[in-house]
Amino acid sequence: MSIHSAVVDQVTAGSRQSATFDLTVAAQRETRYRIVETPAAFALDSPLTEALHSARGTTLIVVDDAVWATSRRKIQEYLDVVTVAHRVLVLPGGESNKTLEHVLRVVEEMDECVTPRRSSPIVAIGGGVVCDVVGFAASVYRRGVPYIRVPTTLLAQVDVSVAIKTGVNRGGYRNRLGAFWPAKLTVLDRHFLATQSVVEISHGLGEIFKLAVIKSPELFGQLEQLPAGWSPAWIATDELSAQFSRLAVAEMAEDLGTNLWEDDLARCVDFGHSFSPLIEMRNGQHHGHAVALDGLLSSCLAAERGLIDGETLERIVAVMRRCALPTSHPDYADVDLLWESFRETIAHRDGHQHLPLPTAIGRCTFIEDLSRDELPGAVRLMRRVTENRR
Amino acid sequence: MSIHSAVVDQVTAGSRQSATFDLTVAAQRETRYRIVETPAAFALDSPLTEALHSARGTTLIVVDDAVWATSRRKIQEYLDVVTVAHRVLVLPGGESNKTLEHVLRVVEEMDECVTPRRSSPIVAIGGGVVCDVVGFAASVYRRGVPYIRVPTTLLAQVDVSVAIKTGVNRGGYRNRLGAFWPAKLTVLDRHFLATQSVVEISHGLGEIFKLAVIKSPELFGQLEQLPAGWSPAWIATDELSAQFSRLAVAEMAEDLGTNLWEDDLARCVDFGHSFSPLIEMRNGQHHGHAVALDGLLSSCLAAERGLIDGETLERIVAVMRRCALPTSHPDYADVDLLWESFRETIAHRDGHQHLPLPTAIGRCTFIEDLSRDELPGAVRLMRRVTENRR
Repeated sequence: MSIHSAVVDQVTAGSRQSATFDLTVAAQRETRYRIVETPAAFALDSPLTEALHSARGTTLIVVDDAVWATSRRKIQEYLDVVTVAHRVLVLPGGESNKTLEHVLRVVEEMDECVTPRRSSPIVAIGGGVVCDVVGFAASVYRRGVPYIRVPTTLLAQVDVSVAIKTGVNRGGYRNRLGAFWPAKLTVLDRHFLATQSVVEISHGLGEIFKLAVIKSPELFGQLEQLPAGWSPAWIATDELSAQFSRLAVAEMAEDLGTNLWEDDLARCVDFGHSFSPLIEMRNGQHHGHAVALDGLLSSCLAAERGLIDGETLERIVAVMRRCALPTSHPDYADVDLLWESFRETIAHRDGHQHLPLPTAIGRCTFIEDLSRDELPGAVRLMRRVTENRR
Repeated sequence: MSIHSAVVDQVTAGSRQSATFDLTVAAQRETRYRIVETPAAFALDSPLTEALHSARGTTLIVVDDAVWATSRRKIQEYLDVVTVAHRVLVLPGGESNKTLEHVLRVVEEMDECVTPRRSSPIVAIGGGVVCDVVGFAASVYRRGVPYIRVPTTLLAQVDVSVAIKTGVNRGGYRNRLGAFWPAKLTVLDRHFLATQSVVEISHGLGEIFKLAVIKSPELFGQLEQLPAGWSPAWIATDELSAQFSRLAVAEMAEDLGTNLWEDDLARCVDFGHSFSPLIEMRNGQHHGHAVALDGLLSSCLAAERGLIDGETLERIVAVMRRCALPTSHPDYADVDLLWESFRETIAHRDGHQHLPLPTAIGRCTFIEDLSRDELPGAVRLMRRVTENRR
């Protein structure tokens, strides 16, 4: 029933009732969660149905407004057929809606449901923002209740849903408030992807691109095979697309699994997350594009240091174009802004740079001694390598 | 440096790149925290000083306004002497201030500090409310940063500080939002207790009383030895008082240590927390008194069921009087209200009653079949046993 179990390691009462008192409590807790792909999330034999049938009380279903617009009738019919007591809350997606206020809307709805604490998972159906908002609400409601995700965007399917991070933006900072709290179940249904635009799909490709450059030559090779002029419908149904999406999830899970709570802050999957956070927040840039641009700047820093050669850098740029990712942005010429953003990232990495840079396609190293003086050269290289379209 | 470390148990990639995809991630995390008593928290050789000296960046010190009123100069002098870069935030105590708004004040101050994520613990100096507010802020800031508690009330020293719960009230519900997030260090200094009133001390005695009845005949015997007319100064300095406070912490830690995240919702330490939560919130009753009244009603239910005899019940009432605890309240005659509150408790216990009742002094059982019809009898017994003052 519970996703966690506790084992006591040691309870040491230094000296009960003596003049001094020095006590250490230690315990271990297991975290376990499942990510499963299904041909149809809203089918009677789907893992979602199974989870809903084992829930007790009234289930809160939070739906992304974009999904509600395209799939309202389908969702309502499904809920009628599975005959689960429920309430539906529609929330807007988009980074500007990743707020504490929306978390509190979920909390209010949960209060109305009066559900058994551990047996009524909240269900989130939508993009990364709705999944993160619901996840954060679940992580703090009654100090943590279960939740289930049905991610409907490529970004949410290959990135958000693999990790156990929840969060909202606050005070101009990305994910300033949040928790590590796993969805006990994540149900992937690729059909949703056909309802996305090319730009929206490219947001997800940005995160896949990141993993490919830093961790997987195989994944990079698959992205190089993306047909020119791919469509969201192709992404939703083609086998190559299914293959690289699954490989991205598996690669991400492999990396996270050994470092689920980021006890080690030198993380290769932070490639693309070093200079972008502040820029992304200030300009309302989409996360997937921000990651891609940061990844390109980082690759240029690597090239300037001689960690990768010019040919590798050109392959990186070519894959970005194939993924319909942006390769330039005025902010990535603003050295002051880039350095300010990096300083905030250093605080987030506990005072360390831990800057992941590629050393080859699918390989990565961490730099601790980047100086501000290296940025102008990388900025110039980024302009040069993206202007010379082959 | 980090209070947690992760060990990978298992990462199973169901089938990378095959037609189906079913992946389970599992990992274990250790939680470890220390509670230490010191003759003087604000001394150069105290565990607090040691922790402050190992912090990096600017340390945020959050002080309860009641403590600030009595100890401002002492705290400022101490901070001058330890020469730690810091900001001080003064927050009001009291249940009505256990709010998300105060959590966000802490968050704003942390934003101003721009501290290294894992190396700048927030320090909370104050009662249970300030400790809970700071703990919750620490649990969600950057998805969790370290914090240190210096509890200054008896309730905070013997109850709040032993557990890893943080939380704020919301929507009329106690601790509706919160997290399980340990203070890596809690520093107990009994001198603070001398600044409390008799009533404030009795709040803490309410939680010690709870533990004694349900878990420790030894602790109950110590409470029976409380001298009539004890003063806060006596509580702060007498050896008997130090003994039962330490025993209460040790007993509480022993119980929590095996169930730190409440995976088992049948908890003997929930004695006194079954009927009180809603009543406490609606009437602004102090938590320690609410727990005592609920404990008495529960004891009367036990007596009505023949689980304890009349003599035991009278010993319980006598100890409550010795602790300056209230033994009657109009709401504890309102059966509708008591039952409504219990229903919310049942939701919090995942649909189970798990009602802890004493079977002797220091012994407990769990009832799952309480009927509303049993309440009037217990209410009558509670009136009878407290009216007949011997």
